[in-house]
Amino acid sequence: MSAEFILDAVVPFADVDREQVMLLSRVGKLLQEAAIQHADMYGVGARDIAERGTSWVLNRLAVEILRYPRRDEPVRVQTWSTGVRGFKGFREFRVWSGEELVITGTSLWLWIDLRTRMLTRVPQELASLFPVGAGSPPYRPDIEKLRFAAPAEDAPTVPVSVRYSDFDANGHVNNTAFFDFLQTALVQSGRAAHPRRLELQFQREIPTGTTSVAVRLAPGDAGVAFAICGAEGSYAQGIVA
Amino acid sequence: MSAEFILDAVVPFADVDREQVMLLSRVGKLLQEAAIQHADMYGVGARDIAERGTSWVLNRLAVEILRYPRRDEPVRVQTWSTGVRGFKGFREFRVWSGEELVITGTSLWLWIDLRTRMLTRVPQELASLFPVGAGSPPYRPDIEKLRFAAPAEDAPTVPVSVRYSDFDANGHVNNTAFFDFLQTALVQSGRAAHPRRLELQFQREIPTGTTSVAVRLAPGDAGVAFAICGAEGSYAQGIVA
Repeated sequence: MSAEFILDAVVPFADVDREQVMLLSRVGKLLQEAAIQHADMYGVGARDIAERGTSWVLNRLAVEILRYPRRDEPVRVQTWSTGVRGFKGFREFRVWSGEELVITGTSLWLWIDLRTRMLTRVPQELASLFPVGAGSPPYRPDIEKLRFAAPAEDAPTVPVSVRYSDFDANGHVNNTAFFDFLQTALVQSGRAAHPRRLELQFQREIPTGTTSVAVRLAPGDAGVAFAICGAEGSYAQGIVA
Repeated sequence: MSAEFILDAVVPFADVDREQVMLLSRVGKLLQEAAIQHADMYGVGARDIAERGTSWVLNRLAVEILRYPRRDEPVRVQTWSTGVRGFKGFREFRVWSGEELVITGTSLWLWIDLRTRMLTRVPQELASLFPVGAGSPPYRPDIEKLRFAAPAEDAPTVPVSVRYSDFDANGHVNNTAFFDFLQTALVQSGRAAHPRRLELQFQREIPTGTTSVAVRLAPGDAGVAFAICGAEGSYAQGIVA
């Protein structure tokens, strides 16, 4: 039983932007794919999700993208759990291009009951099976404590339509769509398309039938604070730099 | 040298919608992927596109989706050219699930000079190399003559944001994004998400910097006429039924 999981991939044409580097949403998708495949090996991934009725849901993610991988570049995702505590799971990511570290990140996942949408304790038999890796120290050991200030209510917003295809087989807007909203708003507001640092917290689900979100952006000392908002409030907020 | 090309695939989680069947954009992507891989075998695909300076661009597509493939379903795409004439290339598609024909379609592609964006004759040495298949008769032998009436100017429209990720490595909005716009508009206007028949013509490119398109829909005798429009006029129009 291996404590870390390796996913090898080659960046396809469909995953790069007009600058020939990976789209932000595809970076998110790559990390998510590695996490799901690893979790699937221990019966806590996407497979059998309907039968099980419980799932990991991404709550916080902090990544540093040292370099955006290019089209046709072979990349290796290395991921491991740093522990499961109560209803929380902690997971590290490192993405390599050969010997070069290109992406490093830490994530916090919550274990929820899909029927009630409530947090629920990870069963001991699952938690104990899941191997804890002992790779390099966590990128953000404080992931659990990360808090983001909301951009001011009067900060400018970029509206982005929600598409039918944003809702996945579980009826939820996939995390990767949030990265699409964010990157669209960054570029439309005249900012760089490729932040080096991205940290965010998912706050609530986007309800089915939602046709648009507003991405609010406000520059500050530590970077650009953002919130992805709707009628119910903020669905996610964080910072890019 | 094989006159037809076979692409085997399994429908992934990320390609299905809340009804557990393939998204319209992913149906389009699957057909496109088979066409590109086949063309790549003869030096006229996506590979070396920059060096060559010429490319096939999809002009018309007519498909009948007898059944939308489901999550985890293994599908086989069978595609062949029915000829290259001047600057036009004709290509058939059949998608099978085991012995069951699930999608059938005909497409017309134009060979263009990427620098000037002008139509250009396919060089004889490329045209003669490309094998003409002799499978079942074409689904729409009249593809070249298909014309679509524009929905009335006063027909209702659904606005859909254009995202940064819609622009591909060549700086063009990928065809599959058009299917996303269309399916979003169908559902938002209270129509069925899964048309059985889709025919469309691509008319002009969506310029870089475009932030939104309007999908105009008007029901008629033969189905729902649609146009995907912007300031310059219509980018694509067609019919779903």
